[in-house]
Amino acid sequence: MRGFNLAQYEFRTLKAQQLMQQHELGALLLTTETNVRYFTGFLTRFWESPTRPWYLIIPQSGKPIAVIPSIGEALMSKTWVEDIRTWPSPDLTDDGINLLSETLNEVAKKNRIGIPSGAETHVRIPRNDLIKLSQNVNLSHDFEIVKNLRMIKSKEEIVKIEKACMIAKEAFGRVPEIASENIQLDEVFRRFQVLCLEAGADWVPYLAGGADTEGYDDVISPAKEAPLKRGDLLMLDTGLVWDGYFCDYDRNWSIGAPSSGVKKAYSQLLDASDAAFELAKPGAMASDLFHAMNTVLTKNASGTDAGRLGHGVGMSLTEWPSLIPDDHTVLETGMVLSLEPGIALSDKIIVHEENIEITETGARYLSPKVNKELPVI
Amino acid sequence: MRGFNLAQYEFRTLKAQQLMQQHELGALLLTTETNVRYFTGFLTRFWESPTRPWYLIIPQSGKPIAVIPSIGEALMSKTWVEDIRTWPSPDLTDDGINLLSETLNEVAKKNRIGIPSGAETHVRIPRNDLIKLSQNVNLSHDFEIVKNLRMIKSKEEIVKIEKACMIAKEAFGRVPEIASENIQLDEVFRRFQVLCLEAGADWVPYLAGGADTEGYDDVISPAKEAPLKRGDLLMLDTGLVWDGYFCDYDRNWSIGAPSSGVKKAYSQLLDASDAAFELAKPGAMASDLFHAMNTVLTKNASGTDAGRLGHGVGMSLTEWPSLIPDDHTVLETGMVLSLEPGIALSDKIIVHEENIEITETGARYLSPKVNKELPVI
Repeated sequence: MRGFNLAQYEFRTLKAQQLMQQHELGALLLTTETNVRYFTGFLTRFWESPTRPWYLIIPQSGKPIAVIPSIGEALMSKTWVEDIRTWPSPDLTDDGINLLSETLNEVAKKNRIGIPSGAETHVRIPRNDLIKLSQNVNLSHDFEIVKNLRMIKSKEEIVKIEKACMIAKEAFGRVPEIASENIQLDEVFRRFQVLCLEAGADWVPYLAGGADTEGYDDVISPAKEAPLKRGDLLMLDTGLVWDGYFCDYDRNWSIGAPSSGVKKAYSQLLDASDAAFELAKPGAMASDLFHAMNTVLTKNASGTDAGRLGHGVGMSLTEWPSLIPDDHTVLETGMVLSLEPGIALSDKIIVHEENIEITETGARYLSPKVNKELPVI
Repeated sequence: MRGFNLAQYEFRTLKAQQLMQQHELGALLLTTETNVRYFTGFLTRFWESPTRPWYLIIPQSGKPIAVIPSIGEALMSKTWVEDIRTWPSPDLTDDGINLLSETLNEVAKKNRIGIPSGAETHVRIPRNDLIKLSQNVNLSHDFEIVKNLRMIKSKEEIVKIEKACMIAKEAFGRVPEIASENIQLDEVFRRFQVLCLEAGADWVPYLAGGADTEGYDDVISPAKEAPLKRGDLLMLDTGLVWDGYFCDYDRNWSIGAPSSGVKKAYSQLLDASDAAFELAKPGAMASDLFHAMNTVLTKNASGTDAGRLGHGVGMSLTEWPSLIPDDHTVLETGMVLSLEPGIALSDKIIVHEENIEITETGARYLSPKVNKELPVI
């Protein structure tokens, strides 16, 4: 099923409103795609356009209020939101800031307005307008209300993430059809995106990877226009979307037989991932999973400098928590995580990634756990 | 050719530095994907991850300075940037803000630091960190230096936009292969993205469209899971990317013979687009192009409420200027625009879009101008 039942949005909004009351917030102000969608179901790729600002207000009670460009009115009116206030954006003299200020003052009276302000957030308002807004209303951070809600996924959300994982599974399974010696890496990237779409992805917002002897330079470069060669380790890491939810995991292939160094490193990555999976359950901390992986990874080699060994996955490709030593977020049922151990091998790195769900008793793979043997093309 | 010659980056940086001097700015601080890439060539899809902040500083003289997560060091070191300062992000206690403050103070001394703050911008720094930064350095708007530079494309940039347009042309040309009566619109969307990739797109960040009798509900909705039916007007609007540059134009098809109302509206859209094209040359204003189109569009029907009838195209799907009554930006050689007239027909709308380049003597189509006849599938 596409979208969610009304009950999901009611629950999210009520939860937010309970927390707002605890923190004496008169309203929440949301400005980014994921946060607006979380409370409304407003799903559009139009956020790719940086031109127009979009605002959603969570009042102390009742439904969210949308303050949005008129171009979005038809789509927003299909959601459960009833109070939709629009202006013809872009307006070079007042791009909705007065309408927003008025609405916030009406809704929040003189109370503080919470706006997500912590790690992994940004305020999607032009800086000049944010300064203007700050003069009209009493802005505050949001006490991480939105982060703490979004970190715990409902069963219905997890169904969508798992569906994205299954679509990626099908695409990954067909990689031997599109990648082999002498095919250029950029062509592999292009064809892999086609496989994702053919398998049912709505779109493919993220694809990274690499291919080189004994590993890859990094995990964020675009594809080189260079042919795959015998002895390369090929990695593809996709964040594809189904109904607004991401999967985020990778797969590795050896082009021809792998070296003993690569085989050993790969097996160490799987051991690290297993160690974290074993620990993953409600009550464990994000940092526990980091240490479980890091202990395995630093046996014979140094960890990568990626800064973390996994993260939350959901409406964003990556979200809270982070599997790093300092993140002591206590895991709860309904969190979805990537386990993403990496090993540096001479000047190259090798990374393996799976997606898991935290269940009441432990964890469950959402991505189909790989076999112990590195696949050979 | 992928990327740009060094001279492009040197020119952009020098131009920015001349303007910084005029406005007495000690440095520019850039935080978003397009702006960082504009001055460096740092091209990665990793920005899809909202987790880590990325900072680029343009000093008063010399090369840009990158203050970035260590995960980006390998890729940034392939650009012309030499001074790359990194930290292991995410760091929950200090995610680069002290390093950034120190670097800005070192570079700008006590002078003001310009940060893009106007329309179509946002600051990609968590709000808490932006507040901290504001206490350590003297932030100012950037006097639209970055906007004014990016609006005028170099010949080399236009080559990339035209290449994206040509890729979309090939994909649009094959739409009759993938869309016909009874095929679901979401399937058409999926297959069209495949066509874009097969035609050579690096990725397809944007696809919108619609299909219904006498037009579509809006131009931002995701695809419905509903079959195309005889008499539908189908529209696909893509922003695909080649080497980091977008095209942004649409095409319409009638499923079966179009009604006389649709035929008339379509022809009016083309007339509107022609009227703007005729006027488009250095010295004309963005608002002139709006009025040229609006005059044609309001002859027999009201314009849409999209708020504008075209916009800039480049590293973003949409950018400055806006073809609206209030935007008096004077057109210059090297601007790339979309002409995007729309007509409301009962409760539906019909939109047509082309991409043009402003030349020394007038304008040139980058998208292949459509025929007068609405194509029938």
